Amino acid sequence: MTKPNALYAQSGGVTAVINASACGVIETVRKYTDHFGNIFAARNGIIGALTEDLIDTSQESEHDIAALRYTPSGAFGSCRHKLDTLEKSRPQYERLIEVFSAHNIKYLFYNGGGDSQDTAYKVSQVSQTLGYPVTCIGIPKTVDNDLSFTDNSPGFGSVAKYVAISIREAAMDLAAMSFTSTKVFILEVMGRHSGWIAAAGGLAAEKEGDAPHIILFPEIPFAPEIFLARVQDCVKKFGYCAIVVSEGIRNADGSFLTESGLVDAFGHKQLGGVAPLIAKLVKSKLNYKYHFAISDYLQRSARHIASKTDVEQSYALGKAAVEFAINGKNAVMPIIVRQPGENYQWTIGEAPLEKVANVEIGLPRDYITEDGFGITEKARAYLLPLIVGEDYPPYKNGLPQYVKLKNVAVVKKLEKAFLI
Amino acid sequence: MTKPNALYAQSGGVTAVINASACGVIETVRKYTDHFGNIFAARNGIIGALTEDLIDTSQESEHDIAALRYTPSGAFGSCRHKLDTLEKSRPQYERLIEVFSAHNIKYLFYNGGGDSQDTAYKVSQVSQTLGYPVTCIGIPKTVDNDLSFTDNSPGFGSVAKYVAISIREAAMDLAAMSFTSTKVFILEVMGRHSGWIAAAGGLAAEKEGDAPHIILFPEIPFAPEIFLARVQDCVKKFGYCAIVVSEGIRNADGSFLTESGLVDAFGHKQLGGVAPLIAKLVKSKLNYKYHFAISDYLQRSARHIASKTDVEQSYALGKAAVEFAINGKNAVMPIIVRQPGENYQWTIGEAPLEKVANVEIGLPRDYITEDGFGITEKARAYLLPLIVGEDYPPYKNGLPQYVKLKNVAVVKKLEKAFLI
Repeated sequence: MTKPNALYAQSGGVTAVINASACGVIETVRKYTDHFGNIFAARNGIIGALTEDLIDTSQESEHDIAALRYTPSGAFGSCRHKLDTLEKSRPQYERLIEVFSAHNIKYLFYNGGGDSQDTAYKVSQVSQTLGYPVTCIGIPKTVDNDLSFTDNSPGFGSVAKYVAISIREAAMDLAAMSFTSTKVFILEVMGRHSGWIAAAGGLAAEKEGDAPHIILFPEIPFAPEIFLARVQDCVKKFGYCAIVVSEGIRNADGSFLTESGLVDAFGHKQLGGVAPLIAKLVKSKLNYKYHFAISDYLQRSARHIASKTDVEQSYALGKAAVEFAINGKNAVMPIIVRQPGENYQWTIGEAPLEKVANVEIGLPRDYITEDGFGITEKARAYLLPLIVGEDYPPYKNGLPQYVKLKNVAVVKKLEKAFLI
Repeated sequence: MTKPNALYAQSGGVTAVINASACGVIETVRKYTDHFGNIFAARNGIIGALTEDLIDTSQESEHDIAALRYTPSGAFGSCRHKLDTLEKSRPQYERLIEVFSAHNIKYLFYNGGGDSQDTAYKVSQVSQTLGYPVTCIGIPKTVDNDLSFTDNSPGFGSVAKYVAISIREAAMDLAAMSFTSTKVFILEVMGRHSGWIAAAGGLAAEKEGDAPHIILFPEIPFAPEIFLARVQDCVKKFGYCAIVVSEGIRNADGSFLTESGLVDAFGHKQLGGVAPLIAKLVKSKLNYKYHFAISDYLQRSARHIASKTDVEQSYALGKAAVEFAINGKNAVMPIIVRQPGENYQWTIGEAPLEKVANVEIGLPRDYITEDGFGITEKARAYLLPLIVGEDYPPYKNGLPQYVKLKNVAVVKKLEKAFLI
């Protein structure tokens, strides 16, 4: 009897460590030859599954699959494509089952954020009603750290580490230049809806006066006068002011700073990034020379300085997903469970996909200092373990040697194409 | 008899490795106790020397001085302050000699770019005429790689490595997202006057189709139509287009893109950075979704991924400067000399300060491909050795442990203060 195949798919914004989860999945499936036939990967996420564009991972060498552990981005391609409700998108869900059936796929490992877990859950439901049962296991991933149930989201720890290191280094540069030149440096980081990533910048500050001096969170309405007073205070006290700003900071009325009247007040329309707006504000009101950086994709692809904890957890979650499937679990997602105690320890737990989906966990208010410009000890205790450890990729000629898979397509079996 | 003291000063924009030169200077001075008394550092560069704000480096432990080797930025503070010609600024030069005389300083080690070497040269001249001979040795430093005589400038190799790694990683992210989302990614890098740093991004591309697909150099007048055609071509061929742009790119008329009519043509005034302008151009003309990053200070402070070659050269140049002084040389600067042959080897040579000063070496035209969008094999052969090797700092709790010196002030001896 032919053993059932598995399908792995990556979804949403990629991270420095999502391929470590892929590595965990594929290596574990390969180990359990009595349970699984082949493992395919969907090219460009769920789109590949819908269009029957599958990748034959058996064509990849052991070495190359192992190299996924230290290779950033999504090795099989990802996509931003959310399946709608069952009622509205039933043909899409049915098509998935058609593709699965054609390729004897009985396991789906879906690596993504809240939306993706919602899709995985629905696939598990439809497969039941259509009489072609598929085991659907989610694998968490998002730099935004906003997934429910899991203590933290894989991908976040590495962004957090990158941001904390970057603001520490850049602020040292600023400190050296500040006597005659730049007084204010602003680092813009991701986090449209919550300040998790911005908060991580606070880890760089270990004692009074350390950078960053100010963190601007989406959770705290931006108050220009109070902010400017704080900047001035910092420059007077320390000679300079280092700032981390979340791309998602908002005005008192809830509008994004980048879309607000505040922007127009400076006579400029937003060209991209909130850092230049903050910089202009500082320049126009306090006349300090500024510099700013926008780390954008750099922060979430910086595998060269990934958190070892993050890499290990990402791999372990991929591995656990396969083990869950082998143990007959369905419609669940392995999660990170933080153990109580002084020394950070984690284990793998599980959460039902039905409840994971579409719930965003925000940065708790008590992780932000009362003045709204820093992180509390509680936040630090939570965040710090997530950035611990380095896990350097191999280098050749000064550059990290990331793997590029062959990504050989599986021969299509269905007659009709499917238009997304 | 009291042994003569030495003074070390950092000048201009700091780098990830200028402290490695400081380490080389101080460790070597400490070794030659028969030649030197103490070594002071000028707080905030030449300003500290003028205002008699000197730092007593003997208060720093061996461990902390050794830690300078892996600590970015300028440990004693730097400044942007160019001394004018002898005719115009004679009182400043005389003041320097006064300070030197008061503190028995007979050696000046001046760590900076072209302007600083000019200052060092003039100090060596004035000291002669004032009858207080000071040995002035320059130590090269600049991320811009535009110093004459030396094969490359310390600081550049590490920025080059950072930029090449960053565009490689971000472009992998882009590749994974491009099917349904972002098609164009733009990384803005430093280099107001020359494209050395932008060129380094080209190292990430090892074969046809590799990112970056386009590099925009200050040396090549920006031609929007040709650029857009190339972007479109890339997206059609590879699915996405990764771009490195130098902050200093110019229009055909020689004006900076950030100050030009081209900017206004999009209806926006520059808020900082050329990357958003390029992004807007791509969006408005080709309607591709874009992302961009501005690395700013991050690129030159990224000690976490410094080039080992750069660190070793920076240290060696600091050490050589002291040895030059011991050997009776004056008004010279140690330089990197590339040895002929297939395998990269370098030695220390010397250049006269008089000739080093104020000469900028641009990126040769034959380092840029004919179409103006990439680097040639000649450029690659020159650049590659400079980024080779990793030299990781120590970490604790997930963060690099950079040293912060005590920087204890030397008691002033002069009656009068000096206003800059």
